Amino acid sequence: MAVGTQIIGDIYPVQGVKLGVTAANIKYADKKDLVVIEIADDAKNASVAGVFTTNKFCAAPVQIAQKHLKKNPRYLLINTGYANAGTGAKGYEQAIDCCQALAELQNVNIEQVLPFSTGVIGENLPVDSIVAGIPDAIENLSEDNWPEAASGIMTTDTRPKVVSVQTEIEGKTVSITGISKGAGMIRPNMATMLSFVATDADISEADLQHMLTEATEKSFNRITIDGDTSTNDACIAIATGASGAVVKSAEAKQKFAQAFQAVMLDLALAIVKDGEGATKCVAIAVQEAQSTEEACDIAFTIAHSPLVKTALFACDPNWGRIIAAIGRAPIKELDVDKVRIFLNGIQIVESGALAENYIEAKAAEVMQQDHIVITVQMGRGDVKETVWTTDFSYDYVKINAEYRS
Amino acid sequence: MAVGTQIIGDIYPVQGVKLGVTAANIKYADKKDLVVIEIADDAKNASVAGVFTTNKFCAAPVQIAQKHLKKNPRYLLINTGYANAGTGAKGYEQAIDCCQALAELQNVNIEQVLPFSTGVIGENLPVDSIVAGIPDAIENLSEDNWPEAASGIMTTDTRPKVVSVQTEIEGKTVSITGISKGAGMIRPNMATMLSFVATDADISEADLQHMLTEATEKSFNRITIDGDTSTNDACIAIATGASGAVVKSAEAKQKFAQAFQAVMLDLALAIVKDGEGATKCVAIAVQEAQSTEEACDIAFTIAHSPLVKTALFACDPNWGRIIAAIGRAPIKELDVDKVRIFLNGIQIVESGALAENYIEAKAAEVMQQDHIVITVQMGRGDVKETVWTTDFSYDYVKINAEYRS
Repeated sequence: MAVGTQIIGDIYPVQGVKLGVTAANIKYADKKDLVVIEIADDAKNASVAGVFTTNKFCAAPVQIAQKHLKKNPRYLLINTGYANAGTGAKGYEQAIDCCQALAELQNVNIEQVLPFSTGVIGENLPVDSIVAGIPDAIENLSEDNWPEAASGIMTTDTRPKVVSVQTEIEGKTVSITGISKGAGMIRPNMATMLSFVATDADISEADLQHMLTEATEKSFNRITIDGDTSTNDACIAIATGASGAVVKSAEAKQKFAQAFQAVMLDLALAIVKDGEGATKCVAIAVQEAQSTEEACDIAFTIAHSPLVKTALFACDPNWGRIIAAIGRAPIKELDVDKVRIFLNGIQIVESGALAENYIEAKAAEVMQQDHIVITVQMGRGDVKETVWTTDFSYDYVKINAEYRS
Repeated sequence: MAVGTQIIGDIYPVQGVKLGVTAANIKYADKKDLVVIEIADDAKNASVAGVFTTNKFCAAPVQIAQKHLKKNPRYLLINTGYANAGTGAKGYEQAIDCCQALAELQNVNIEQVLPFSTGVIGENLPVDSIVAGIPDAIENLSEDNWPEAASGIMTTDTRPKVVSVQTEIEGKTVSITGISKGAGMIRPNMATMLSFVATDADISEADLQHMLTEATEKSFNRITIDGDTSTNDACIAIATGASGAVVKSAEAKQKFAQAFQAVMLDLALAIVKDGEGATKCVAIAVQEAQSTEEACDIAFTIAHSPLVKTALFACDPNWGRIIAAIGRAPIKELDVDKVRIFLNGIQIVESGALAENYIEAKAAEVMQQDHIVITVQMGRGDVKETVWTTDFSYDYVKINAEYRS
């Protein structure tokens, strides 16, 4: 199940970044499950930035990728099937062994290989299958393989997620292309999230890291399916500089950042729309808050409420559950009389109670749609933040309860 | 659906407290939906204490009950069907009108009546039905009506919840009897929780309030079905003093508090076992934490994880989801290598990874049981706290999504 129909536009290759995909029989036969991303050797100016899960049980590959990030990365090695999290010292060694195999084959330093894994937690990697698959993935390397790589990192995803845009920087055409995955597995464990974005813009590592952190904050850090932060989340940005477009002036930075953020947000929303059992993509826009933290606290409390989520699934404009969620959010001195709530523009709550002109039939109509905006005006300040989430359906329980082979 | 079979032992009346129940056609025909609890006029020494929801959208009756609590209460008036929350100024007036009707009939001050409501949020009380039902409830007043009152406050509960114990204080027999309700409604909105506990012990209001607050902290504040704090939660304790047993010495206080806490915990656990769609009652015991706050943070993060809850429903010892939940709990400087996890005594995690002697078949066997203890040893301190919760089933989604008539 997934929300809406998927429209994939033109995918622009990024000069200096090749992707190779293979079916390495890691967990299932004949499934593309191993992806190698290569940063060209001559991309001497390539910048690589990363953001990683805050989960303290973070997976072995995440720990290694964080260490290797600053060592002039040349290869990303991504497997599905096993998350290599909760695997202790052995898991760490196994991830290193996989990096080593790729490093030897391509004659680079092992520290130039960043590993990523997604799949079941707590079981060991089938290192032999991965190592055996690496030459095939290398053989397959091509700048045109973004869609194939998007498919190659899928687990319970029902759709590959790939986003691509072009923009002009200093008179030169710049491409930004990325892929993401989530949320779930056939043998489900965690809604692991991985994303890889590349551009041929020329941008310093510090600037790229800054833009990645900022864009992540407003994209991947603003989505939630079930509130369960994964042990394996990672998002990597690569800038090869191959276009010759230098992102250095304030104007160039602003323009690039805008395009980059749009790609990141689209990749994040693709995850929400493909959320486990999702029938709706719901934006929760909190306005008139005192701070970003406060706005996010309120939005996430609503987004995580099982009662709000089941009401969304039922297409029920059950606003009582929304005010109850707001009322339990960790906000000090909340004046409930100032709270207003809208469903796609229809006001349902004013002065903390049902709006006088509210007509339930109209709200019920809105709730039939698969894209819904819940706007909450707090009457406390001028900060606004939006969080995107899904509903909670029978299929969510089914996906996460029925299958564990 | 509910967990296990229900065994109700002897119910001891509490001298000085009478309960009257009637079917007032508040929302459904022929359902006991209105309860009056009377504190005897001659119980001059009666102490009444209360704890209330922290939800900032707290219902009109909760606001009034809090105000009236210190005004020598004589009557509690409880209706099901409508929560009278999110109803603004009109809701407040309606709750006052109901109190006024009872006060006039029984010739007491309106401030001596405490109102309580549970049911759908945002719709107005049918005041006429309630007022019309009050004389019948008064007519029905009896010290023996605890089980009937437990039924009379039910909404989607499948079982009445009543707990009763006797203990000896200063050579005299003291009874403690209470009822609770939760979690859900036929027309579901919130897992509202109400509880009323009475004793014939002679105890000062300050001491009773202190004991109630302490016992609530370790009972009702340690359970969760879905994490959604209701707008109507309230728990009231009444001590009539009719037994002549004075709870004043340190020894008497300790003994009484112990019995009182046992009643409160049993009432709270009755709610968990009857949780919406629940097939399991799960204790999450966090040990070796640095503080109560930290232990509770970890326990509630596990208890609220939809992935842990769906694994419990599936009888799947999916420990990866438990460590992922611990890893995202708001704990600073967590050394994951010190974390150990047990399922009913079977060690599944040591040094932050799968325990060496772990046999999945044994853990799977434990997971088939309807009472499960997940013990988490953090290796950080000596504080321990337990939180009780349920699993997350198809029926949870069904109860909260399918019905809104």
